[in-house]
Amino acid sequence: MPRYRLDIEYDGSAYAGWQRQAGNHSVQAALEQAFKAFCGEDITLRGAGRTDAGVHATGQVGHVDLDRNWPVDKVRDAVNAHLQVAKETVAITAVSFASDDFDARFSATARHYLYRIVNRRAPLTLERKKAWWVPKRLDAEAMHEAAKILIGRHDFTTFRSTQCQAQSPVRTLERLDVMRSGDAVEIRASARSFLHNQVRSMVGSLKRVGEGGWTAADLKEALEARDRAACGQVAPPDGLYLVRVDYPA
Amino acid sequence: MPRYRLDIEYDGSAYAGWQRQAGNHSVQAALEQAFKAFCGEDITLRGAGRTDAGVHATGQVGHVDLDRNWPVDKVRDAVNAHLQVAKETVAITAVSFASDDFDARFSATARHYLYRIVNRRAPLTLERKKAWWVPKRLDAEAMHEAAKILIGRHDFTTFRSTQCQAQSPVRTLERLDVMRSGDAVEIRASARSFLHNQVRSMVGSLKRVGEGGWTAADLKEALEARDRAACGQVAPPDGLYLVRVDYPA
Repeated sequence: MPRYRLDIEYDGSAYAGWQRQAGNHSVQAALEQAFKAFCGEDITLRGAGRTDAGVHATGQVGHVDLDRNWPVDKVRDAVNAHLQVAKETVAITAVSFASDDFDARFSATARHYLYRIVNRRAPLTLERKKAWWVPKRLDAEAMHEAAKILIGRHDFTTFRSTQCQAQSPVRTLERLDVMRSGDAVEIRASARSFLHNQVRSMVGSLKRVGEGGWTAADLKEALEARDRAACGQVAPPDGLYLVRVDYPA
Repeated sequence: MPRYRLDIEYDGSAYAGWQRQAGNHSVQAALEQAFKAFCGEDITLRGAGRTDAGVHATGQVGHVDLDRNWPVDKVRDAVNAHLQVAKETVAITAVSFASDDFDARFSATARHYLYRIVNRRAPLTLERKKAWWVPKRLDAEAMHEAAKILIGRHDFTTFRSTQCQAQSPVRTLERLDVMRSGDAVEIRASARSFLHNQVRSMVGSLKRVGEGGWTAADLKEALEARDRAACGQVAPPDGLYLVRVDYPA
């Protein structure tokens, strides 16, 4: 029973998130249905990151076991064709054979997210649902400086959803960079794993720093409070992209 | 009666093109209606480029005369607010005062277009309606070399729509560059003015070169035929962006 690694891209706007759930359409269900249409098998697809409703991915990774030994390009093209027929905004960008112990979720050593803010007076047109529109001018350098406070191993209770099911609120944040490029303010976050809503919670608080509402000291205080109520606004899903997942070589 | 210059951005997917027309919604009409809602005036807005249905703009320019002397930021924010209420995918990115002899269309000295191809096996998700999906591998260097044939002053009858209303088929193409960046193949075209469908016609023929169906000599022959029937496929509107318009300093 061969195991396949899938590299997956999607526009999350139309989905209730990655994870299959009763009554709502999910990215996972869209893919599982396309596999069913392709090979007739009822498969279960595991993904590296359980992205929320409206969150996008350019580098999601999943794995699946199939009964037959299909050529990898055949899997990619056939499943993509069924996704297109079903008018899904999901595509498989690459398929490769994986070893039996490869698990898209549990083997991952790092997850990389990008958060895109468009910082200008004019509302979004081409990037609607693809970025967070912030009309008030942000100080991206102040955000970048403040972000350093969150890097490292911390109790991120302040920055996780009350719905978060992780056993521990402790995570090690490897990277949190903020960079302006014209009207775009891009935030890049990397860690072995993130808590539920962690990136959007950190981005919302950094935005408050960028607007001048918070100093870096306020951000530090919020982190140290270990209290969800101390968090700034949670940034909307529109600007968030799962861009890469790392595995052992 | 002050004249205003407007810098305009839009996602053209939902519009029958720039130009107002009976029975179809256009970018021009969306803007004129938003001005009406803002100041009560029935204005006529002239644009630099009459983009086709489905074509986008990040740097369209228009001008308008208003009875009252509004602050430019007030015009931008108020018209944008009315565009948002009407759920238009159009925004004014900047407003400035212009001299009485400024004409967005006739004063323009150059128009710059970008055409985006995504060249990969997987269908589009995040860029659906925002790029041309070409699954077959393109040789972007061969396209770039061949494009040089079209640069300069030529009779572009082969590369203009049979509907084109311009008196002369002669145009001077200043720039036609093709560059690959990962899966994206970007084509940049600049001229004082273009014929109807000229960029999409040139891109369609360059794609044929990129696929190996045409040599550069075939492209030259097509140009010299001065015959619309000699043109390759016309590229779809999805990948075309009006990115900048130049005016005398």
